[in-house]
Amino acid sequence: MEKIRVFAPSSVANVSCGYDIFGFAIDEPGDEVVVKIKNKPGVVITKITGDNGKLPKEADKNTAGVAVQSFLKNIKTNKGVEIELYKKMPLCSGLGSSATSAVAAVFGANMLFGNILSKEELLLFTMESEKIACGSAHADNVAPSLFGGFVLIRSYNPLDIVKIPTPDLYCTIIHPDIIVKTKDARKILKPEVCLKDVVAQCGNVAALIAGFYKLDYELISRSLNDCIIEPQRSKFIPGFMEVKKAALNNGALGSSISGSGPSIFALCKTLAIAKIVGNAMQKAFELQNIDSDIYISKINNVGPREVIDNEEN
Amino acid sequence: MEKIRVFAPSSVANVSCGYDIFGFAIDEPGDEVVVKIKNKPGVVITKITGDNGKLPKEADKNTAGVAVQSFLKNIKTNKGVEIELYKKMPLCSGLGSSATSAVAAVFGANMLFGNILSKEELLLFTMESEKIACGSAHADNVAPSLFGGFVLIRSYNPLDIVKIPTPDLYCTIIHPDIIVKTKDARKILKPEVCLKDVVAQCGNVAALIAGFYKLDYELISRSLNDCIIEPQRSKFIPGFMEVKKAALNNGALGSSISGSGPSIFALCKTLAIAKIVGNAMQKAFELQNIDSDIYISKINNVGPREVIDNEEN
Repeated sequence: MEKIRVFAPSSVANVSCGYDIFGFAIDEPGDEVVVKIKNKPGVVITKITGDNGKLPKEADKNTAGVAVQSFLKNIKTNKGVEIELYKKMPLCSGLGSSATSAVAAVFGANMLFGNILSKEELLLFTMESEKIACGSAHADNVAPSLFGGFVLIRSYNPLDIVKIPTPDLYCTIIHPDIIVKTKDARKILKPEVCLKDVVAQCGNVAALIAGFYKLDYELISRSLNDCIIEPQRSKFIPGFMEVKKAALNNGALGSSISGSGPSIFALCKTLAIAKIVGNAMQKAFELQNIDSDIYISKINNVGPREVIDNEEN
Repeated sequence: MEKIRVFAPSSVANVSCGYDIFGFAIDEPGDEVVVKIKNKPGVVITKITGDNGKLPKEADKNTAGVAVQSFLKNIKTNKGVEIELYKKMPLCSGLGSSATSAVAAVFGANMLFGNILSKEELLLFTMESEKIACGSAHADNVAPSLFGGFVLIRSYNPLDIVKIPTPDLYCTIIHPDIIVKTKDARKILKPEVCLKDVVAQCGNVAALIAGFYKLDYELISRSLNDCIIEPQRSKFIPGFMEVKKAALNNGALGSSISGSGPSIFALCKTLAIAKIVGNAMQKAFELQNIDSDIYISKINNVGPREVIDNEEN
């Protein structure tokens, strides 16, 4: 195989109470890449579409490029890789756009080289690439995007990632047409948390995991409650509380900021509810005179996958 | 039935990373009570043994008495209850002694009255009784003691308690002959926690629950790690780090302070390991010139139970 087209799912990091420890993959939106083996060493990005010219084509400034560079260095090959990147999701949306591209590219490259490395090994290269996007080697987008499903990052040092089974859940994403910079969203967070809130947050993260194992939707719903980060970050999103309320009032199990925003996610039991919830959230943003896009899909449980390469975009 | 003898298990609250949210019941030590129906209303404590005269016999100052008073008030009866309390565990040990007596008494009283209330209802009366012991209606001892097993308290308002299945685990308790007052142990806690530690703690509580559901002993072991409370409270226990290290070096999955101390618990995969661990911990205390008692038992999964009443103590 000399060429492959790969889809990778985007992801919702933090997931309400799970700041910096939870993330899950969603089937929509996502990115596609075409990767080809070339005989010269190194990584070349030959094409990027869907980014309105905003992403760098230089391989060492682009997360897809950096991840594949780390991969090639690790497998010690004389060959190189050519990447075409088809962005099919918004940038700076809180859905791990940079992580999605990196996961798609490195997964594709690994397949081309005969699947020589495990996903656990690939994870390290995608975390490396997150450094240029976020300033630190975060895993809460790349890990769910790569492994699929709901992922718990117990610890970074040593890296300890646990995949958590969930019931079939649908995710509604509403992406408002506003900008929140990840670095700003991190900067405003108070460095200290009062002990009472720590206890409440720990109770919720523990109960969310229990809810997933017990398939207890009510418990999942009660646990999707963030008393620490959401109250601080939601001020970047005009109308946040109204949009969240619209989700909950229309049957969502829970709703909060996706990553550092501005997208808001809602988890729902059925596709029908997810659609109603999406419309209600969009209307709530309209009342703030904010346009938005809706994405609805199941939690993606497989991570990236090969797709048929019959398109030019 | 006019009379019943009941054993209730003691409990380990907090459980390392789970400050104020986790607790589990252990089969040893525990308390026994004999409860009898009497025709006059009210609660009378007729006998207390094993407390060295330290516990009040006045029903409204004794947790067993208060819990049964609340119970009788709730079921609106003209009858009363007589309680004999056989303390078979140390007071102020960090094992929920006051909770254990209350659970035994109210469970017995409920059986005498035909099991008219559920354990969920009984819990409220035992929490009421915790107010006189701790100053607040904590549930992290009474809930595991009453329900058995490992218990997660997701929230107090509203009260939301989740029983978590665990693999068969043995618990070693080492109770050193020193005194730590719960109120003092609470008082020294810093009211604020740095965000980095909150993330680490949340990762551990989530992973501990996952480890229990996955029956993953390694994950359980890695998750039994408290970066917030243990470093502050362990200073009340001379030699704490040495005792903990002795437990871990001898095969315990994890070890930390039980409740607010001074007892230290260690969770172990087998009875044989639990015994070795207990001896090693006791030796570590000996090096500090501190005497100690060892208790070893399985996690108690049933809560209180009727026992044969052929003893006078």
